Amino acid sequence: MRRQRGGGRSAKRAARQQSQVADVAFIDRKIPYYELLDDAALELIEHNADTVLEEIGIEFKEFPEALNLFKAAGADIDGERVRFPRGMCRSIIQDSAPAEFRQHARNPARSVIIGGKRTVLVPAYGSPFVRDLDQGRRYATIEDFRNFVKLTYMSPGLHHSGGTVCEPVDVPVNKRHFDMVYSHLKYSDKPFMGSVTAPERAQDTVDMAKIVFGDEFVENNTVITSLINANSPMTFDATMLGAATVYARHNQATVISPFILAGAMSPVTVVGTVTQILAEAMAGMAYVQLVKPGAPVVFGTFAAAISMQSGAPTFGTPEPSFVLFAAAALARRLGVPFRSGGGLCGSKIADAQAAYESANTLQTAALAGVNFMLHTAGWLEGGLAMGYEKFIMDADQANMLAVLLGGVDLSENGQAMDALREIGPGSHFLGAQHTQANFETAFYRSTIADNNSFEQWEEDGSMDAAQRANGIWKTMLKEYEAPELDPSIDEALQDFITRRKAKFADRDY
Amino acid sequence: MRRQRGGGRSAKRAARQQSQVADVAFIDRKIPYYELLDDAALELIEHNADTVLEEIGIEFKEFPEALNLFKAAGADIDGERVRFPRGMCRSIIQDSAPAEFRQHARNPARSVIIGGKRTVLVPAYGSPFVRDLDQGRRYATIEDFRNFVKLTYMSPGLHHSGGTVCEPVDVPVNKRHFDMVYSHLKYSDKPFMGSVTAPERAQDTVDMAKIVFGDEFVENNTVITSLINANSPMTFDATMLGAATVYARHNQATVISPFILAGAMSPVTVVGTVTQILAEAMAGMAYVQLVKPGAPVVFGTFAAAISMQSGAPTFGTPEPSFVLFAAAALARRLGVPFRSGGGLCGSKIADAQAAYESANTLQTAALAGVNFMLHTAGWLEGGLAMGYEKFIMDADQANMLAVLLGGVDLSENGQAMDALREIGPGSHFLGAQHTQANFETAFYRSTIADNNSFEQWEEDGSMDAAQRANGIWKTMLKEYEAPELDPSIDEALQDFITRRKAKFADRDY
Repeated sequence: MRRQRGGGRSAKRAARQQSQVADVAFIDRKIPYYELLDDAALELIEHNADTVLEEIGIEFKEFPEALNLFKAAGADIDGERVRFPRGMCRSIIQDSAPAEFRQHARNPARSVIIGGKRTVLVPAYGSPFVRDLDQGRRYATIEDFRNFVKLTYMSPGLHHSGGTVCEPVDVPVNKRHFDMVYSHLKYSDKPFMGSVTAPERAQDTVDMAKIVFGDEFVENNTVITSLINANSPMTFDATMLGAATVYARHNQATVISPFILAGAMSPVTVVGTVTQILAEAMAGMAYVQLVKPGAPVVFGTFAAAISMQSGAPTFGTPEPSFVLFAAAALARRLGVPFRSGGGLCGSKIADAQAAYESANTLQTAALAGVNFMLHTAGWLEGGLAMGYEKFIMDADQANMLAVLLGGVDLSENGQAMDALREIGPGSHFLGAQHTQANFETAFYRSTIADNNSFEQWEEDGSMDAAQRANGIWKTMLKEYEAPELDPSIDEALQDFITRRKAKFADRDY
Repeated sequence: MRRQRGGGRSAKRAARQQSQVADVAFIDRKIPYYELLDDAALELIEHNADTVLEEIGIEFKEFPEALNLFKAAGADIDGERVRFPRGMCRSIIQDSAPAEFRQHARNPARSVIIGGKRTVLVPAYGSPFVRDLDQGRRYATIEDFRNFVKLTYMSPGLHHSGGTVCEPVDVPVNKRHFDMVYSHLKYSDKPFMGSVTAPERAQDTVDMAKIVFGDEFVENNTVITSLINANSPMTFDATMLGAATVYARHNQATVISPFILAGAMSPVTVVGTVTQILAEAMAGMAYVQLVKPGAPVVFGTFAAAISMQSGAPTFGTPEPSFVLFAAAALARRLGVPFRSGGGLCGSKIADAQAAYESANTLQTAALAGVNFMLHTAGWLEGGLAMGYEKFIMDADQANMLAVLLGGVDLSENGQAMDALREIGPGSHFLGAQHTQANFETAFYRSTIADNNSFEQWEEDGSMDAAQRANGIWKTMLKEYEAPELDPSIDEALQDFITRRKAKFADRDY
């Protein structure tokens, strides 16, 4: 039983250490952005993106409302293809899209600001499978969904409850959104994301939010963020446009995200891919601004490469990092919040591959200046699986990103000249007065790392990081306590769900 | 036998994929540095470092030559404590230390330039233990040493053969350097590092280099780089100073490296630690310039944090990244090459902990602007163990750093407007003419990642990254072919070693 014993010890230590992470609603960036490209390169991409919008255009499939709005705004409509005069999308966006916005949580202390120098870390999204060390890989259930909402609620480094933290496959497709939105509202008090798989599900999300926040509050404030993927290349489909339209009309936020496996959905080069991303994102954001000027939009991008040999998506390599750095800079120039990054990886399990790939993407996202970092924790297997152990590991990295983005203390205490004078050559600083005064908050302590001696590590069961993480999530779920929710609101939510679910038959799509 | 079969397949794929990495002697950086601190902050640290040098001073232990040289240069000598007038160390260094230098390899095509916009990636250094999946952790032997020289020789992402790639514990301490230097010269043709554990061992290194490169060539060119650690805080000892003096006199390069576990050997803050590092490195480099003006020196730093609870060193956390970013900028301002970084980790095994920590440090080192990246591949357990599988994983990351530092292709082909025009909305780019023309070189392909489907991965034996790496290093060693070495030179080297080894008794120190 060594493993369990060790896991328990790690878990308690992890719980203790999490108190080191400041309990803040979001990260306020104190370090510079990494600017990979200079202005001339960014202008070139902007010019090329305008050429894409002007010459090639974007398709808005089976969604006449978009065609009508764009036509009225001066675009050229050819069937479902929309071609935009140079600069049109940019000026529509810059005329009305907010540079940043507040997404309210039901606990006001957890409301986040998305945009500007803020970073909001969000769990992974959309996996049909879950994986843990005990049961391996299996279809996700609503219980798994609740578990990840709870684990996110308990993770100080994650600021947002996310959306489809995994697909609750045991609930009918057309009724899942009720249970998902309810779970976010019931088991967490962090902000959340709404359903986008059909316009009426988006409307249900808005209606449920109104039960919690009040009708008028929702119409005047953003309480939902939603993920609107482009159907790259250069296409938006009716499902996503429908959901985006509902959210925009109610003043709720949409993250307009080209979803790119470069080489398949975009050209096989970095600049070609970024150009397409900018064109797609601008077209989508412009549409939202035409629906409701001022509705919050986020420039999103998800970009991986594909292996040109096997066609498989690959993660954590330099080319997607280039795309991310460039897109972040383009979003800043446009003046809108930016979404990308996360703990992306192709590995099936929480091994070294998963960690190298995730760390490479997380570091890039942090330095690039991502405002809304979807997929920060849990992602495995190119997004097909949500990993319990992986989640715990990534949440540890999320804590570190907060420290990284918090920057360097240049105060007199930070300069530590007194300590240098007190100790001098040849001694050690452990007993220094300055060390004693600062050791509680000095240096981030990982929740999953074992830094003990080899002998102690062996004595503790020679566990790898995944085994330690296994103990941590189990302890967390055991110790979970739900945030308070007014019983009358809870009842109203459940009534709403029961009534709505009874109105139509279960469906698998 | 699934594991072996799969390992073999991975290994062959890895061998194929390595051909994707350009066979260059070193990396020529094309991307900007990440500047964490602004000029005012860097000036503050420089000011404080000068205060350390002026008020507190640096001890040069049992090494009168240093005291004499510094006294003659105008420093204040108090016992073994040397106090420096403000600006003195900086001006000594800036008067004569080269901003960059060429370290010649015995194969001229593998000579490296250290400094400026170049990055040279070097394997890990100094581990008494090795670890592999088959035998676990054990003391390193000279056979392990040879293996890592061979693996480094075969790794296109590693530019330098390194030094003590592991401690050959089966050879007497006072005779190891002969076998180590011989191994670098015999089994590789990449540049290498010399012995620093005693002045006479440094001299033996120089003498062996002269057999290969010729006496006059060595006196006039740099063919050896050596690692001179400060005995932090604020102390240099006679062993390291003795070795540095030998190398400097012969015009060979020294990397002057404060070795810091912050909180123990330095203050418990980032700025305090960087201040001390700058003071120590400047004092050491100034000493070398006084011994021989113009001898190549590198500003080195190794900085980890310690857990203030257990005293254990920790890696891959934000604070050592801050130290690294700041020190790199200070080295640039000083005008000397910079050494830091590597695949540092505290994990005992090549698991997710190892990978997160290593990736965090490697990414930081690349963006910060490290010129000489010791410990790039193989490092485990805070440097106590050199891992075979870890080496293969890190070598893969090294390949990626070359792509990252190589920057973005802004050419017309990189812009890919033809591809965007050819494909347009709703189709895919796999068959595009532009894709076909570029797919061979597009997108880095990891040697250790498995990006296949879950089903294929299971079919291949459900291996983790370490198991795949296990197959790769075995295949590499099997396929290793030694670079040509003139038999008369080989004989002369062996004669030299036999003669020298016979001159004194084996010793354990």
